[in-house]
Parts: sequence; structure tokens; C-alpha cells
Amino acid sequence: MDDVAVSAPGREACVRLDAENPLASLRDRFRMPRDVIYMCGNSLGPVPVGVPERMRRAVEVEWTDDVVRAWSSAGWHVAPERVGARIARLIGAADDEVIVADSTSVNLFKLLVAALRKNAGRKVIVVERGDFPTDMYVASGVAELLGGEVRMVRPDERAGAIDESVAVVALSEVKYRTARGYDMRAMTRAVQDVGALMLWDLCHSAGVMEIALNDCNADYAVGCGYKYLNGGPGAPSYSFVAKRHQADLRQPLTGWHGHAAPFAFVDDYAPAAGMARLRCGTSPQFSLIALEAALEAFDGVDLKAVRVRSEQLTSLFIDLFDAHLVSRGFGLVTPREVERRGSQVSIAHAEAYAIMQALLAKGVIGDLRAPDVLRFGLAPMYVRCVDVFDTVAALVEIVDGRVYERAEYRQPGKVI
Amino acid sequence: MDDVAVSAPGREACVRLDAENPLASLRDRFRMPRDVIYMCGNSLGPVPVGVPERMRRAVEVEWTDDVVRAWSSAGWHVAPERVGARIARLIGAADDEVIVADSTSVNLFKLLVAALRKNAGRKVIVVERGDFPTDMYVASGVAELLGGEVRMVRPDERAGAIDESVAVVALSEVKYRTARGYDMRAMTRAVQDVGALMLWDLCHSAGVMEIALNDCNADYAVGCGYKYLNGGPGAPSYSFVAKRHQADLRQPLTGWHGHAAPFAFVDDYAPAAGMARLRCGTSPQFSLIALEAALEAFDGVDLKAVRVRSEQLTSLFIDLFDAHLVSRGFGLVTPREVERRGSQVSIAHAEAYAIMQALLAKGVIGDLRAPDVLRFGLAPMYVRCVDVFDTVAALVEIVDGRVYERAEYRQPGKVI
Repeated sequence: MDDVAVSAPGREACVRLDAENPLASLRDRFRMPRDVIYMCGNSLGPVPVGVPERMRRAVEVEWTDDVVRAWSSAGWHVAPERVGARIARLIGAADDEVIVADSTSVNLFKLLVAALRKNAGRKVIVVERGDFPTDMYVASGVAELLGGEVRMVRPDERAGAIDESVAVVALSEVKYRTARGYDMRAMTRAVQDVGALMLWDLCHSAGVMEIALNDCNADYAVGCGYKYLNGGPGAPSYSFVAKRHQADLRQPLTGWHGHAAPFAFVDDYAPAAGMARLRCGTSPQFSLIALEAALEAFDGVDLKAVRVRSEQLTSLFIDLFDAHLVSRGFGLVTPREVERRGSQVSIAHAEAYAIMQALLAKGVIGDLRAPDVLRFGLAPMYVRCVDVFDTVAALVEIVDGRVYERAEYRQPGKVI
Repeated sequence: MDDVAVSAPGREACVRLDAENPLASLRDRFRMPRDVIYMCGNSLGPVPVGVPERMRRAVEVEWTDDVVRAWSSAGWHVAPERVGARIARLIGAADDEVIVADSTSVNLFKLLVAALRKNAGRKVIVVERGDFPTDMYVASGVAELLGGEVRMVRPDERAGAIDESVAVVALSEVKYRTARGYDMRAMTRAVQDVGALMLWDLCHSAGVMEIALNDCNADYAVGCGYKYLNGGPGAPSYSFVAKRHQADLRQPLTGWHGHAAPFAFVDDYAPAAGMARLRCGTSPQFSLIALEAALEAFDGVDLKAVRVRSEQLTSLFIDLFDAHLVSRGFGLVTPREVERRGSQVSIAHAEAYAIMQALLAKGVIGDLRAPDVLRFGLAPMYVRCVDVFDTVAALVEIVDGRVYERAEYRQPGKVI
């Protein structure tokens, strides 16, 4: 990158920024993959150092020695509540307002049905185009089942769409594709002002910024365990329900682990008190144990400081974008205003597909969202300023050398 | 056990039976817990020998080195279909009729809703008292959601309850509490004769007997991965849908992994072809990988021979029961007719709770179903005739020595 008259930092400046990073040592909490620059923590986080030994113990000690007794002796039974409490501290909730169970999609289903039942008489679920598709898919499944209506709006239509017919609004705090972020407090208030309930999807925000669910008076939330929480592939998801909504919460997936007395084995269903009623079947323990061990990477970490580092990384990426990528046919997808974006930078290019293939071949791991968006997750606990610099430099090389024109990068089906 | 005039085998005879067992070497496929007799495989199977190394590889190689790329490179994306095909071969289904995803409770929900939609105009779900509670709980959740009706019947009321108002009948092939088994063929025919659909819960039968879903013309089935399939705590569950019902199957948990093109990220839902539409969110990979590795314990195993061994074990238990336990206040809960029982023997005693505590303290691992049933899972791939003998001998000792009267065994809350 030898563009003349560039105001963005050079590589040496980036090395200096990393040396001055007060959170630099957090990177040692991860087994970073060798020989690559990992910019995909917004899809799947890397391995926190405590996980392998914890998993070995779960399989080779707890299961092997205690077998069924480990449900008690190793605390497997109460893991959904215990891990939920750990996550609660990362998202501004009380320990007994969060539980880990099932996938994000299944949890969205539970809470959207609960919201329609709570807000009886209203039938509309508002979701936003461009949010992660499962939010829209699950909303449509719920509406079909209950005779509800999904109002799927563009961001510019949203304000007009939230009226007194709306039962619940489901929005991602940070959008998966653009990294655009919402003001949780203002949006929650606007939704509640018309008597609707607010459900936040935290998949792309939890772990990289302060989240204050209770301080913002959120009603419900769901989130994912395997992105910035680093819980491993398909780690179970969590649900948040504000204390004020717990007593009359009616979720439809009435499995035995959500029963008031699951081991009494009675014929009739009676929901457990509190968040336990959001449990359904038996939790996939190994995936839950991996998530629990992964969360230790957050021990003693101040999310305010994490957000400062996140802003430094995304701002640096955008400065380098302005200096080197605009002139090479890239467009900026992520908002420029720092307070309106999450911990990711997305850029667009007409040759995005082939460019991402070429980038992967160079050992820079980002991903593509068809047709033309390249996404880079800047997880502030382990991504460095030099990683951002080297990523942009690799993009420059690929474009200047027309590397993306090679046939091997144009084959379909290889993208991640 | 020195009862006089006993026709049941003694310990030496049991040792001989084990020596003659053509499946004896299958026990080496498991890491059996040390110093205990493990009779709880109907709740949680022990560790198959291939699992620890496979799990180590999943965490320390696939996730560590490839991180997000492992979704493709390690075949994580297609694991639900791949593991489903392995299970299909154990239950008499075609490879593309079974998929692994979510818990048994969640799968029951999907298929009961699908059945009510398929059999539109009928509103009744028949379930049986004494089946595993989650079947009843989920059925009631579905009925409440869709304006259906749950007809919860005792076994003796069942025949009269299955009429032309019934949309679907959900039954366990083998009951969790009594080990009573059904004739799948006759029951399926009787249900279909009135135009209802048949959903089998295979949690307590798969892996210990031949199951012929297609040969019996079953419509739907669900089952659990962690009992006789030994997939580890909370292993994900599987669903079966007969090919003839797949094209118009409408399940309500419309998450992104069940979409026709999940990585196109379009706003509108369109179901995938075939069983993939039963996927919902991202699968908990580590639990799924443990299950897949566990299923290798079935490689080359003939389930007909497994059933022969299972009948030998349960018959031996009942012979020993007649010789030594009837006279000590125990009652037989499991049917005497060998063709009417699964691979478990349940016995009742007024002091069941304290007796099970005392038994656990002696290193015999069974479990209790309140108020008075002691369950013993006789998993034919690793339980031996001597284990059965020693279990009965331990019960005799506990009763004759009034060991169960000790205060330590009467404290509540210790039971498994």
C-alpha cells in the first residue's frame, strides 16, 4: 500500500497502537488459529484457552466415571441457569432473567408466541428487512400458527409501522450484514409508547459492547453463544425475560425440563417458576459446557473498555478504507458514525465473491454475504490493529494484481 | 442369596452364560465406569470408546485450526443429515427419512403440529397416561396453541379413544416406567384404519431391538440420542418422517437452517426439500459430534442378535426376581411376556426410595421413578448376566440386612 498522500496510519503506527492497547493481553485468552488473520468472530469465535481441558474433563471424567450420576455430581442439571447467569452479567440483566437453552431460532419462537399471548388482542409482529433472516422466518412461522400478521419493513418505513396494532417488535441491536447499530433505549421507549413489546436480538452485539437491557427497560431478548461469546459451533442460545414478565410468561414449547417438578413425572403440565419454564428438552451438555468454559474469557473484563477498543478497530478500518479502498471500487456498507455501528466493518465490491476467495487463499478469514458484501468481524478481545492493516493491504494487492480474476477464485460454492 | 429350592441360575451359571454370549466383545466398545454395575443405560448410556478422541479432534483441531471454515472443511453443516442417515439404519428407515436436530420435546412439537396440519379438520391428539411426561406436556402445548384437544387415556381406554376425530396418536414404543412394549405394526394399522396418523416415540426402544418403521408403515417418529444410542448427555434427538409425508410437511419452527437456501439470506421463508426442513437453528456441534462417534459402536452389529441377548437378560432378571425378590416385598412392574417388554426391568417396593439409595451406595446404578418403582436398564451391548445376578443379590442383602432403614438412605433429594 504505497498510495501517496495518505493520512491513514501505516503498518508501524498500527504496531504502536497495539503495543499501547490496554487490553492486549486478552488475546492470550484464545487459541488463535495459526498462519491466518481471523476476522470472522462475528460468525464463529475462536477457541478460548480453557475450553479444551474443560471438554476433556466433561467427557473423560464426568461422563466416563459418573455417567448418569453426573447430572447431579457435575452440576449438569442446573447448567442452563448457571450459564445464563454468567451471560446476564454481560448484557445488563439480573442473574435470574437469563437462561441458556435451544437455538436462537427456537428461543425467538418461544418469546414471539409469549409476546402475542401477553399482548392479546394485537396480532402484528414487526420485523425489519435486512435483519438476520431467521428473525423474519420465525416471525412468519409464528404468525401462520397463531393467525398473526408479520409487518416486514424497511428501516425507513419502521417508524410509521409501529402503531397500536403491534404486539411485538423484534430487532437486532446490531445488524449482521451492515453492522448498523440501534439506540436500544430510544427504540425500546418508542415501541413501548404504543403499547407494544420489545424483543432484542443480541447475536451481533453481546460480548463486544456494553448492553443494558434492564436500564433500557427491554421486555425480551435472545442471543447467540457462538459469535463474540466464543462458545463453539452451534453453542446453545440464551433468552432474557424481564422480571416483570416472568410470572405470566406462557411459552409454547412445554417440554419436561420446563415443568415445575420435572422429576415428579406427573401427567399434567405445570410451568416452572421463573426462567426455568423456558427450558424444553434435555440440554446438549457438551455444547453447553464449551460455552460455559468460553465465558471465562470475560472474567474481569470491562465491556466499556472493550467497546473503546472496538471503536478504535472499526475507525481504523474505515480510515484505511478511505485511504486505500474507495479508489479501488469498494463501497462502505457500515455506518460512518461510530455510535451507529457494532464491531464489524462491511464493504461492498462488484467482484466481492472472487475477492473473498482470493483473500481466504492469502489467509485472511472474512466472509461474504451475497451478492456483494465482504464482512470483517473486529472482535476487540483478539483482533489487532496490524490485522486490520494487513487485511486492507491484502485487499489492495488482490485488486491491484487482479488476483481475483483467476479462475480458481471464481468457482461457485467455495465461499464461507 | 442362599434361598433354598431355587430354580433360578446361580452366579456361576451367569458367568457361563456370559462366556457363551456371542456379543460379549461388544462391551469392549465402551469405557465402562469403574467399580460399579451400570444398569442405567435407559437413562444415559456410557462412553463409547471412539468418542473422547473424536471430541478432542473437534475442539483441538477442527475448531482450533479451521474455526469458521470447519463448517465446510469438517462437514459440520451436513452433520444433521449425515448422523440422521446412521440412525435410520437402526430403526428401519431410509437414509433420507431421518434427521438429527434439537431435543425430543422440540421434535415432538414440530411433528404434532405437522400432523394436525396434515389431518386438517381433526383436532384430537391421543396420548397415553404413563408415557414419558414430555409427550403429554408437548401435546398439551400444541393443543393449546392450535385449538386442538388432547385425549389422555389409560392403556385400557385406548382402543375406544381412537376414532375418526383423531388427527394423530403419539405413543412410546417402549414405556419408560414399565418397559411395556407395543406391537408397532398392529398399532400403526389400527390408528391408520380410522384415518389418524401414527407418531412413535422410540426413546426407550432404539438401539436394543429391531425397529421396522417403514415395514410397519409408520408416519412419524422421534427418538433420543443419549439412552441406548449412547450419544452423551443431552445428545440431540432425531425425527423420522415417512417419504410420502415429506413433500407437504409443514412444521412451525421455521428457522434459517430449514430454509431452501439458508446461505442466500433472503427475507422470505421457503422450506428446504425433504427432511432438511425439520432443521431450525444452528446445531450444537459438539453434542452432535459425540453422538456420531457413539453410533460407531453399532458398526456391524445385528440388532436381531442384540434383541436375543436383551431377552436373555430381562428373562434372567425376572427368574431371579421370582426366586429371590417376590418373597421380599417386591412386585414386578415389567410384563412377563417377553414379546411385550423392552430391555429394562422395573420392580416396585414400598421402600423403593431408600432401597435405591442403599443400592447406589453399594455401586449398583439403577434409578427410581417415584413413588415406588426401581428401574434397571439392561443394555444388551454391555450389561452382563453376572451384573444382573449381582444386582439382585445386592437387593437381597439390602432387604435382609434392613440396610435401607439407615437414616442416610432416607434423606430426600439424593435420588437419581
